[in-house]
Amino acid sequence: MEQTIVNIPVGILYKFMMAVFIGSGISEKDAKTCADVLIKSDLRGIESHGIGRLRMYYDRLKAGLIEPSATPIIVRESPTTAVIDGNHGMGMVIAVQSMQIAIDKARQYGMGAVAVRNSTHFGIDGYYPLMAIEQNMIGMSFTNARPCVSPTHGTQPTLGTNPISFGAPTDEECPFLYDGATSITQRGKIEVLSRAEKPVPAGWVIDQNNRPMLDADQILDEILVDNAALLPLGGENELLGGHKGYCLSTIVEILSSALQNGAFLFQLSGLNKENQPTRFRVGHFFMAMDIASFLPPEEFKHNIGELLRILRSTRKAPGQERIYTAGEKEFEMEKNVQANGVPINANLHKDILFLQQELNLPGFIFAD
Amino acid sequence: MEQTIVNIPVGILYKFMMAVFIGSGISEKDAKTCADVLIKSDLRGIESHGIGRLRMYYDRLKAGLIEPSATPIIVRESPTTAVIDGNHGMGMVIAVQSMQIAIDKARQYGMGAVAVRNSTHFGIDGYYPLMAIEQNMIGMSFTNARPCVSPTHGTQPTLGTNPISFGAPTDEECPFLYDGATSITQRGKIEVLSRAEKPVPAGWVIDQNNRPMLDADQILDEILVDNAALLPLGGENELLGGHKGYCLSTIVEILSSALQNGAFLFQLSGLNKENQPTRFRVGHFFMAMDIASFLPPEEFKHNIGELLRILRSTRKAPGQERIYTAGEKEFEMEKNVQANGVPINANLHKDILFLQQELNLPGFIFAD
Repeated sequence: MEQTIVNIPVGILYKFMMAVFIGSGISEKDAKTCADVLIKSDLRGIESHGIGRLRMYYDRLKAGLIEPSATPIIVRESPTTAVIDGNHGMGMVIAVQSMQIAIDKARQYGMGAVAVRNSTHFGIDGYYPLMAIEQNMIGMSFTNARPCVSPTHGTQPTLGTNPISFGAPTDEECPFLYDGATSITQRGKIEVLSRAEKPVPAGWVIDQNNRPMLDADQILDEILVDNAALLPLGGENELLGGHKGYCLSTIVEILSSALQNGAFLFQLSGLNKENQPTRFRVGHFFMAMDIASFLPPEEFKHNIGELLRILRSTRKAPGQERIYTAGEKEFEMEKNVQANGVPINANLHKDILFLQQELNLPGFIFAD
Repeated sequence: MEQTIVNIPVGILYKFMMAVFIGSGISEKDAKTCADVLIKSDLRGIESHGIGRLRMYYDRLKAGLIEPSATPIIVRESPTTAVIDGNHGMGMVIAVQSMQIAIDKARQYGMGAVAVRNSTHFGIDGYYPLMAIEQNMIGMSFTNARPCVSPTHGTQPTLGTNPISFGAPTDEECPFLYDGATSITQRGKIEVLSRAEKPVPAGWVIDQNNRPMLDADQILDEILVDNAALLPLGGENELLGGHKGYCLSTIVEILSSALQNGAFLFQLSGLNKENQPTRFRVGHFFMAMDIASFLPPEEFKHNIGELLRILRSTRKAPGQERIYTAGEKEFEMEKNVQANGVPINANLHKDILFLQQELNLPGFIFAD
């Protein structure tokens, strides 16, 4: 998508991420968790949520918006559920601990769910269901986010991109893994188009008068001042189901905030009443279901494998060569990136060199 | 939407539904459950799933495709989960029992989930979360259905309309209740357009060559022979997120079939290898979460109420007067239908008179 100027080997990029997190005051153990989540995004080809966001985390840590050494605590618990207060720590650290609690409860009782308050941006939503998949479980992950999506019949950026992620093991090497915003697109993709200096497709974003917006930089600025909004999945009205995307986004917002007495909608803007940067207070919701509670896991894996193979084998539209199932593209990309490194464009390269200089990390060489 | 020729009072229509179900061999207790679900659809203004489907249930019962006196049984159970075999009974009876099991488990452990095999069409998906809402719980309901939706890059009707329903109590009279197919539209709406003799909007349905189809009767015929397909939410390709609707539909299919070793995709066509009508073997998945496991229910209701009121209060698009939240329109419709009766058009009136004659039910008068 963007003009690549260098491919950085995965191992080097991972060590650099670790160094930046540790240099920002995060413990080695927690830095590893953060880098694990971040590099997974680059490996899977989701360039919006990997190394491209390292500068954002660094800036927020430096500004005191994220507490590098916060410890998440359990504030309420039942056999199958927990509420976690993240204490404004790194979202990945909070999320991994919370998903693990959901998995542990599911192992004991069949199901587990954890609602999280006072967290921060946790990287790709799809990382956490992968933890459940490794334990022969179905995993789900939801998060709210800064207001940028308009409700149906509205033009104000109100809801976050509020993704849904769902993963399940199969009888193939590649698990089933869906991870998608409930809006047509998400802020990270607009950032990618901005860095690549490319236009935004019509139908993704509207202005305050419900007219299409196509300029990525303008959109990123205007969302912050309420003059642009991403559209929910299904588009701007009910004709093609825009109300469905809007309702799914609302459901994610409810799960992520209302169950933990947390911040929601405009409260997640990252700005206080004086328009100064403040903590984000992001909320998440994680769920795990132990497949063995329903049927032998091998039977489940066979069932879902058959289902996915049938989907792929159905009649293609003219000009199409392949029908994918969720997670296949990213799984294939992972092998490619492991072999060839992570593609870095000019603007991202500048961010990396900036971080290298800021934290005095001369040992890394980011050139071909 | 359709030309109304008579409004039938809710009480009379309900008694007629009961009489038709009892006349088809269903016990009075089970007939009441079926009529409760069916009338709820008419009350909420969802004309695709109420009295308009009574003839379909009657035809299937008469043809032996549904067992009027089947008893659902639990085939596997854990503290929080169960697998139910519906034994080809009425879907509403099976679904109400299954959702109740999920609710009972959630009351004891915080969460409950039930996967169902060998069921049949269960009416509106949104009925079952309402059962959870009454118990201060969050409820979710999913079902697979006859193949009619194409995967992204495909043109073959493969997935069902596979709805997602999610409900939660609020601090208002109206609960939050979403109930929507993961396709842009659903078969029932095409049936409504067919009865109303109106065209289908562009963007809803494609033919085998990926071209738009607009004729409702033709669509209903051609779906059955693989030549027409409903499009997933987000449309025909990835540009506006069609892959998201496709993946959400796949998730519903997985939850509804793979956890209970059940039928999926083409196996749900209702036709056997000799192209003769056969049992549908529909699968469902129900989930309940006890809100009190996370926080005091009154706090949750206040949180979600605030969230919904903020959504409604945001800036309207030019020409729009109101932003709705999920379930509001239907809640208001319910009061209207209670007062004014269920609107019946000419084609539906014929179906009703047919059933009246078939089952010899002269006591009902269906005219203004």
